[in-house]
Amino acid sequence: MAPQLEPFFKQVDDLSGSFIDRLRKAVAIPSISAQDENRPDVFRMAQFLASELEALGAQVEQRPLGKQPGKEHLDLPPVVVARYGNDPNKRTILVYGHYDVQPALKEDGWATEPFELSVDSQGRMFGRGSTDDKGPVLGWLNVIEAHKKAGVEFPVNLLCCFEGMEEYGSEGLEEFIQAESKKFFKDADAVCISDNYWLGTEKPCLTYGLRGCNYYSVSVSGPAQDLHSGVFGGSAHEPMTDLVHVLSKLVDTHGNILIPGLMDLVAPLTEEEKALYPNISYTMDNLHESLGSETGIHPTKERTLMARWRYPSLSIHGIEGAYSAPGAKTVIPAKVIGKFSIRTVPNMESEDVNRLVFDHIKAEFAKLNSKNKLDVWLQHDGKWWVASPKHWNFTAASKAVKQVFGVEPDLTREGGSIPVTLSFEQATGKNVLLLPMGSSTDAAHSINEKLDRRNYIEGIKLLGAYLHYVAEEPMNA
Amino acid sequence: MAPQLEPFFKQVDDLSGSFIDRLRKAVAIPSISAQDENRPDVFRMAQFLASELEALGAQVEQRPLGKQPGKEHLDLPPVVVARYGNDPNKRTILVYGHYDVQPALKEDGWATEPFELSVDSQGRMFGRGSTDDKGPVLGWLNVIEAHKKAGVEFPVNLLCCFEGMEEYGSEGLEEFIQAESKKFFKDADAVCISDNYWLGTEKPCLTYGLRGCNYYSVSVSGPAQDLHSGVFGGSAHEPMTDLVHVLSKLVDTHGNILIPGLMDLVAPLTEEEKALYPNISYTMDNLHESLGSETGIHPTKERTLMARWRYPSLSIHGIEGAYSAPGAKTVIPAKVIGKFSIRTVPNMESEDVNRLVFDHIKAEFAKLNSKNKLDVWLQHDGKWWVASPKHWNFTAASKAVKQVFGVEPDLTREGGSIPVTLSFEQATGKNVLLLPMGSSTDAAHSINEKLDRRNYIEGIKLLGAYLHYVAEEPMNA
Repeated sequence: MAPQLEPFFKQVDDLSGSFIDRLRKAVAIPSISAQDENRPDVFRMAQFLASELEALGAQVEQRPLGKQPGKEHLDLPPVVVARYGNDPNKRTILVYGHYDVQPALKEDGWATEPFELSVDSQGRMFGRGSTDDKGPVLGWLNVIEAHKKAGVEFPVNLLCCFEGMEEYGSEGLEEFIQAESKKFFKDADAVCISDNYWLGTEKPCLTYGLRGCNYYSVSVSGPAQDLHSGVFGGSAHEPMTDLVHVLSKLVDTHGNILIPGLMDLVAPLTEEEKALYPNISYTMDNLHESLGSETGIHPTKERTLMARWRYPSLSIHGIEGAYSAPGAKTVIPAKVIGKFSIRTVPNMESEDVNRLVFDHIKAEFAKLNSKNKLDVWLQHDGKWWVASPKHWNFTAASKAVKQVFGVEPDLTREGGSIPVTLSFEQATGKNVLLLPMGSSTDAAHSINEKLDRRNYIEGIKLLGAYLHYVAEEPMNA
Repeated sequence: MAPQLEPFFKQVDDLSGSFIDRLRKAVAIPSISAQDENRPDVFRMAQFLASELEALGAQVEQRPLGKQPGKEHLDLPPVVVARYGNDPNKRTILVYGHYDVQPALKEDGWATEPFELSVDSQGRMFGRGSTDDKGPVLGWLNVIEAHKKAGVEFPVNLLCCFEGMEEYGSEGLEEFIQAESKKFFKDADAVCISDNYWLGTEKPCLTYGLRGCNYYSVSVSGPAQDLHSGVFGGSAHEPMTDLVHVLSKLVDTHGNILIPGLMDLVAPLTEEEKALYPNISYTMDNLHESLGSETGIHPTKERTLMARWRYPSLSIHGIEGAYSAPGAKTVIPAKVIGKFSIRTVPNMESEDVNRLVFDHIKAEFAKLNSKNKLDVWLQHDGKWWVASPKHWNFTAASKAVKQVFGVEPDLTREGGSIPVTLSFEQATGKNVLLLPMGSSTDAAHSINEKLDRRNYIEGIKLLGAYLHYVAEEPMNA
């Protein structure tokens, strides 16, 4: 063990009660970014973080982001930026987290009050934001406090970037990161984001890849207004009929994307990459548990994880404009808009994907020979991200996991996107590491969100140890 | 002209102002059956009708139907039944209409106050319920009044059945009709319903057929809860993918139903029936006008009208459980329910249709080889109806049209269903005639509902003349 870690770890254990109290105070502030009426709470949460950081000796600024686009009566919550340490002989690590949370109401089905941290006998700490993302954010503050109280020199310069709009699209953040990349963030040697989850509940992971997402709308329109299916059924081309035909040409039940040429864009699987999968702590039972059913497509964990992480997928999300309520309504909708998205992976470039999607959909619609009108467009896209897990940022984190948990971490990717990851990579040009604190059972965004006491306290040790190993790793990128 | 018609017609013209006043009073009562808060208005409208009928000398009863199923705090509005005349030497005609209306709010886009009758310079009388169905209902009252004031003997015994829940599913009516078929309605020799519309704006029609409707739900379910398409896309069978595939196997863009065996149930087109179509006053321009587009399937009016009236059609109405809002959401819905209906025609029996639908959908789903679960069921069905247009009830009405409007009426069917038609036919065993008063442009159920002054006043003459010719027609069925 690095000699400074022992007193740091001991201090974390000694302070664990006050660290949980700090989380309790943070959870008690309902900093829900999606609800107008909670906007003052989001600001209050920013002030709480800023005050705590200042008390620990950091230089802190609350950076305004202006009015909220489309809701100009609301100010966007500030980005809380902080610097702790300014030693040119130390590496500088930029950490990101967010202090806003998802909405939560007791009556949604919570067993406890969502904005009161409630610790049960198994050490599960229930509360909105406990794992997403207040626990990890406070983790960094706790690391500073434990170093100070243990009298251990802080191993790096730490830059913090904590935002308050993550659960509502990170309004304004990308521009902010870009603008600060040559200012507040200019010294950063690497980036660490703790805002995702272990693959299971026992083994930590380091995450080195994310899929992108291209989200499409395809509309079919015909009559000028909705029609009565009794009066007009059989006499007019029905947009819903056409849309269903077109949507049925996108993907089959086994997840095979039916768009010609799309799979040719996917980077081939290398032997080296393939070799990472068998060791990953994951089973088909884990999949069935999270699905709540045995409706998985693939027979093995390797193929399942690859399908989620390194191959594209296409999901049809729904249809706007058609009848969607319970019961029965005999309408012929005049205009319907299908929504689907493609999860993208290396080396799929968005423009290539768009071209193939548009060409295919138009060709399939043309085959129908309908008099209706079809349109298809990209709603938004976000690029995939893959980092090198051999970078010192990752090897340091790997040593920290080994030190704290006694195991090699799984090297994982994720199927979803965390857009800020790519923003930091592109703005700083530095390696970005995703270093999760919580586990797969934490229910972020759901009722009964929780963070396990072990994940929180050992996670604080992990974040601290990571900074020590980061300070020692030889330069390799 | 039958000798009694002249003084009757003159009296209708003389009383036209007071007949419009009667409609104005009725429109002023917002008898909206679908809105709890208007239930007292529905009762007030029943009382208005009953008082007017009594003042004209009819025996009137307001028959309670009990509590509203599912809304037991509400009493169902009464059925207003009335008898005018009790001469065993006269034919007895049972007429049906409804005194409740659809909801309407000025802010929905009405040009005038919906519950104030507003007559413009072209004689269009705007107001909720003007054409659907207060104008036709009052038409029968006006016929009585004009006979009395003209001193013309009423040619038949008239039985009235006016309900107050038609716009909300005619709760309780079918049982009432059944129960009264051997009591209050036992003398009826034929039935006349004025609650539909001319095919266009110039030429009256008599309607002798309606399509039925079998409404289906098909559900596909897999995971226990909605999934994130980033996290799980590619690894699990998606219910929405399967549903879209199944729905695409039901009907093609040209309206051809793809369910094997279904078209074999349809009664063949006879030469006699075919001969009715060319003379019908309808053009492809009429179709395009009502569609607001040129997305009709068939090239000729004959084929278009047959597709609407005498062939089945299948419409996909929407999907419950999928994402249906504007914007983008990356959900994999756990359970989705497709809704579609088949408009049925002679000789499609509901059980046969169901069997073919269920077998086909299950077979198509089986082909997918999905691990998801499919279910398909009938939500409700209503049988088609066809009457003989050679019955004296129809030939009398035809003569009345010729007398009042100077043209032979179109013999039409309708694509939609009017369930009460079948209820009366089945309960009384007598011929039922649909004799519309309003025109195709009346916008029933929409904003700016209206009844043209001409349709109302000449329509009163038509209803009266019909009763005179009914009295004279030889028995033929």
